[in-house]
Amino acid sequence: MKIEIITTGGTIDKIYFDAKSSYEIGEPQIAEVLQDANLTIDYQLTPLLRKDSLDLTTADRLLIRKTVEDSSCDKIVITHGTDTMIKTALSLYDIQGKTIVMTGAMQPARFRFTDAIFNVASAIIAVQLLAGGVWITMNGQVFDPQKTRKNRDLNRFEFV
Amino acid sequence: MKIEIITTGGTIDKIYFDAKSSYEIGEPQIAEVLQDANLTIDYQLTPLLRKDSLDLTTADRLLIRKTVEDSSCDKIVITHGTDTMIKTALSLYDIQGKTIVMTGAMQPARFRFTDAIFNVASAIIAVQLLAGGVWITMNGQVFDPQKTRKNRDLNRFEFV
Amino acid sequence: MKIEIITTGGTIDKIYFDAKSSYEIGEPQIAEVLQDANLTIDYQLTPLLRKDSLDLTTADRLLIRKTVEDSSCDKIVITHGTDTMIKTALSLYDIQGKTIVMTGAMQPARFRFTDAIFNVASAIIAVQLLAGGVWITMNGQVFDPQKTRKNRDLNRFEFV
Amino acid sequence: MKIEIITTGGTIDKIYFDAKSSYEIGEPQIAEVLQDANLTIDYQLTPLLRKDSLDLTTADRLLIRKTVEDSSCDKIVITHGTDTMIKTALSLYDIQGKTIVMTGAMQPARFRFTDAIFNVASAIIAVQLLAGGVWITMNGQVFDPQKTRKNRDLNRFEFV
Repeated sequence: MKIEIITTGGTIDKIYFDAKSSYEIGEPQIAEVLQDANLTIDYQLTPLLRKDSLDLTTADRLLIRKTVEDSSCDKIVITHGTDTMIKTALSLYDIQGKTIVMTGAMQPARFRFTDAIFNVASAIIAVQLLAGGVWITMNGQVFDPQKTRKNRDLNRFEFV
Repeated sequence: MKIEIITTGGTIDKIYFDAKSSYEIGEPQIAEVLQDANLTIDYQLTPLLRKDSLDLTTADRLLIRKTVEDSSCDKIVITHGTDTMIKTALSLYDIQGKTIVMTGAMQPARFRFTDAIFNVASAIIAVQLLAGGVWITMNGQVFDPQKTRKNRDLNRFEFV
Repeated sequence: MKIEIITTGGTIDKIYFDAKSSYEIGEPQIAEVLQDANLTIDYQLTPLLRKDSLDLTTADRLLIRKTVEDSSCDKIVITHGTDTMIKTALSLYDIQGKTIVMTGAMQPARFRFTDAIFNVASAIIAVQLLAGGVWITMNGQVFDPQKTRKNRDLNRFEFV
Repeated sequence: MKIEIITTGGTIDKIYFDAKSSYEIGEPQIAEVLQDANLTIDYQLTPLLRKDSLDLTTADRLLIRKTVEDSSCDKIVITHGTDTMIKTALSLYDIQGKTIVMTGAMQPARFRFTDAIFNVASAIIAVQLLAGGVWITMNGQVFDPQKTRKNRDLNRFEFV
């Protein structure tokens, strides 16, 4: 059983370019997270997009969908910005025969204090245990995207 | 649904006392790990023991068992040293009606590079998704303790 | 001998607000840096401004100058954004009887990998060893602001 | 002006080998510290010993002395365990024509919270600013080893 991990950008991958005094989405940070975790599972990493999730277009979502559908793996983890994570999850909702778990972070993986490691671990475990379908792991919980919203004031996901 | 998290010591909680130039098991580090993760789940933390798992006695294991049995929660996470984690897991194997997930770390939670956060997250998610019984989450995987060993040379858990 | 540490903002204090998907300058991070360092020197912390250094006005620089002049300490460290650090240093250049050392960071202090700790330590030591005047510590060196420029392409300070 | 950095072991370089459940002195950690700091100074790194400073012998101290004397640099930083740092400093006290600054750490450089970065930065700056002789930088201060002791109860260096 192999897990495919697709990265699309978002806060989890934000790095800081001082030369421009701005934050930009950099290389997927998940590779480093997985290395520290000393994993023995079999996985492959697919860097697909490098975008703030508010900037994802319909074409981007179709590309994510096609990448999932064409994957030889039936266990898929997708890292994604949190602002439109639910929207992308719903766009994948009718894919059959695969378990897809989306996650991201409220604080960049590069920070000393970040939820990125916890969230990625949550997705890696959830994708192995959950039945087929699309799920979101954030804040230590597993969410069904059809019954979830991002609470922007409290900066967290919650059940509707 | 509330999760009870019982800490028993092990490498995950090792800190460094320079005054004695030695490593000792300190306060449970898991509180800080959980705080960074911005959790929305309901949990309670029970610091029970502060021991290297090679030093755990039969009395210690009976105490762990009694604490699990007496808990008002049916979802239990136990942090534990890795050397005898499987032994303790087997001592809890016949407890009915609860899901128990044990985890620990190969590198202390205080390190910049540690598997502690990943492993704790794995346990928190697994305890919510798994059926009753005793499980171990290490190296990104869920193990049945009856079919698991710690490979000391490769410093990881693996299926027998 | 007491050291006064005045904070004015800049990258060193940048934190990330996911709710707004933007980086902002937060509480001075230096307090945490100093705490980890286990200092025995006597110092006081004065949070003065919380600005990107490109946004500092003439009034801001006059406020910084007045704060330095009015300080009861003759050893002053100022944390500051790097883009106009030299300009502010020159605006303090004729102050007599005090040693003033300015520093900042190219990567926020909150990052796992940051130059903030190194630079703050450099300033704390330099302010104790240097004669009166205004100095900058960046990149492991002590600079005279009259002979220094920020090389934005290489993202570092260098002698003119 | 080139700085030679000689590493001899000590807590600063302690890493954790779970396979043996013990802490050992590993590769010099200073290389990583210096890399994060984005230094522009010219330096060379000389890994000389890898010992707890309580285990340093007379022969070890003679080797350190010879390495300092033979160095083509007149600015020398030495990382060293704290327990006998003063003793080694005094053994180098009569070397002429060089500035030697010794430092170390109470918490390993691998920790998320460590004084290692601060102390190394202190030494790098001090070695550039101080006159010839042997000095110690710890706890944000510069010490003359002839007037210094390690307070083991408070876990810090202080003037006698």
